[in-house]
Amino acid sequence: MKHTASVFGWPVRVYWEDTDAGGIVFYANYLKFFERARTEWLRSLGIGQQALRDATGGIFVVTDATLKYHRPARLDDALTVTARLTEAGRASITIVQQALSGNETTPAGDTLIHCEGTLRIGWVDAATLKPARMPQHLLEALK
Amino acid sequence: MKHTASVFGWPVRVYWEDTDAGGIVFYANYLKFFERARTEWLRSLGIGQQALRDATGGIFVVTDATLKYHRPARLDDALTVTARLTEAGRASITIVQQALSGNETTPAGDTLIHCEGTLRIGWVDAATLKPARMPQHLLEALK
Amino acid sequence: MKHTASVFGWPVRVYWEDTDAGGIVFYANYLKFFERARTEWLRSLGIGQQALRDATGGIFVVTDATLKYHRPARLDDALTVTARLTEAGRASITIVQQALSGNETTPAGDTLIHCEGTLRIGWVDAATLKPARMPQHLLEALK
Amino acid sequence: MKHTASVFGWPVRVYWEDTDAGGIVFYANYLKFFERARTEWLRSLGIGQQALRDATGGIFVVTDATLKYHRPARLDDALTVTARLTEAGRASITIVQQALSGNETTPAGDTLIHCEGTLRIGWVDAATLKPARMPQHLLEALK
Repeated sequence: MKHTASVFGWPVRVYWEDTDAGGIVFYANYLKFFERARTEWLRSLGIGQQALRDATGGIFVVTDATLKYHRPARLDDALTVTARLTEAGRASITIVQQALSGNETTPAGDTLIHCEGTLRIGWVDAATLKPARMPQHLLEALK
Repeated sequence: MKHTASVFGWPVRVYWEDTDAGGIVFYANYLKFFERARTEWLRSLGIGQQALRDATGGIFVVTDATLKYHRPARLDDALTVTARLTEAGRASITIVQQALSGNETTPAGDTLIHCEGTLRIGWVDAATLKPARMPQHLLEALK
Repeated sequence: MKHTASVFGWPVRVYWEDTDAGGIVFYANYLKFFERARTEWLRSLGIGQQALRDATGGIFVVTDATLKYHRPARLDDALTVTARLTEAGRASITIVQQALSGNETTPAGDTLIHCEGTLRIGWVDAATLKPARMPQHLLEALK
Repeated sequence: MKHTASVFGWPVRVYWEDTDAGGIVFYANYLKFFERARTEWLRSLGIGQQALRDATGGIFVVTDATLKYHRPARLDDALTVTARLTEAGRASITIVQQALSGNETTPAGDTLIHCEGTLRIGWVDAATLKPARMPQHLLEALK
């Protein structure tokens, strides 16, 4: 897998809290890793979610997730979690994310994928949780 | 939504641990709720996963998840989480699950859906995490 | 250990989400189990925390915790988690809690303790998180 | 609070997963933050826990925790979590940890404390979970 400059990556270390009695990362926890990387991707665009909520009254809420679990990650693994925007509209955005092994490569030099997901995320009013139109400056910052 | 007798349901209460600063259930936590309901569904079929692992050396591992988030659940909500087997083969099974509101119904008397998911789950050797053939008695218990 | 009638107990099953790669319940998760049991103990006294917050603007916040981990709990273990009020004042309450094995007893018939904790819990204004005086009817319901 | 050179610190950002419906970090999650910082402190001493387990068959298990919650942390807060060894014997070690605010200081320039804890941690055989004597090279690396 080759990364172009437009793919954001965030390092995530696997701790005891992330693992389960199977000795591997518990399947729900990739959604935590993905959320951390999305948050840091937004921060890299100048978007702090708490500040954004204070200013606009809106928050992001995931509406759809599709996940493929390719190979288990284990305690102490050093992962890179990516975030790549694939669609952006007034009501929602779509982001593709991967949890990649930071240590291992195949003989051909490829990065190994632990989990990948496609997340659709809506913009809602934080008080009512009803869908809302994304502020123009937010939409522009995303694109 | 009508439940037939073949849909397994398990009560899940929303606690502080399940919520986030948006005041709603954090999106990853539905995967915890689904896993609890699957575990109890298996138990209802006489299948204890720890005992099964001790006896066969195998464990279930989720390989694919598709999730739709319909409406947020909140602190103190009493949910029913369902599990319904839709496919069973030697290498994997597919289960459809819903997190339903136990309190609320629409004017028409329908149950409200918070989240639904389709989970494909493989059977692997616990030591190597390599795919394995599901023991015949397990497959029969599932069907 | 003998239980008197005044000790509240709540069943907690150990799921995959609760365990770590050591094969045992991750140490932070007993605080989740304790919180669930406290919530259900409050509910048994007619106190719903979301309703209470809506009515009074206050929430409980833990200020001190002392935990002893006696013996590990494992996947599929059926625990009973207790809650016993030991002090109640206008600003805070103290609760002693235990995670007990529901299956195992010693030769002498005692229940085995996995974890026990003493929790001091303050009452704060939900908006400012500043300490507040507990409403009289709440204090009376607790005693 | 002044830090001497001997206090290890690890940055921890507060994400949605860490917060609850009170808008603050859920109380159990400081134990996750503390475990991450202990893991990184060990790594800074050349100790990888997975490698250590593979080599010696032993793991660390927390036996006692005492926690004081001083002030809530919130979404997007940038914390520093410290780890400072205060005792080391053949059977257990004691570590004092703090979750400090990385952004805020008092007028006097002090760092604000969100949570502090004292953790006693035993060394056990990973298979039996029975207490064991810490390997000499581990004990020396710690001191």
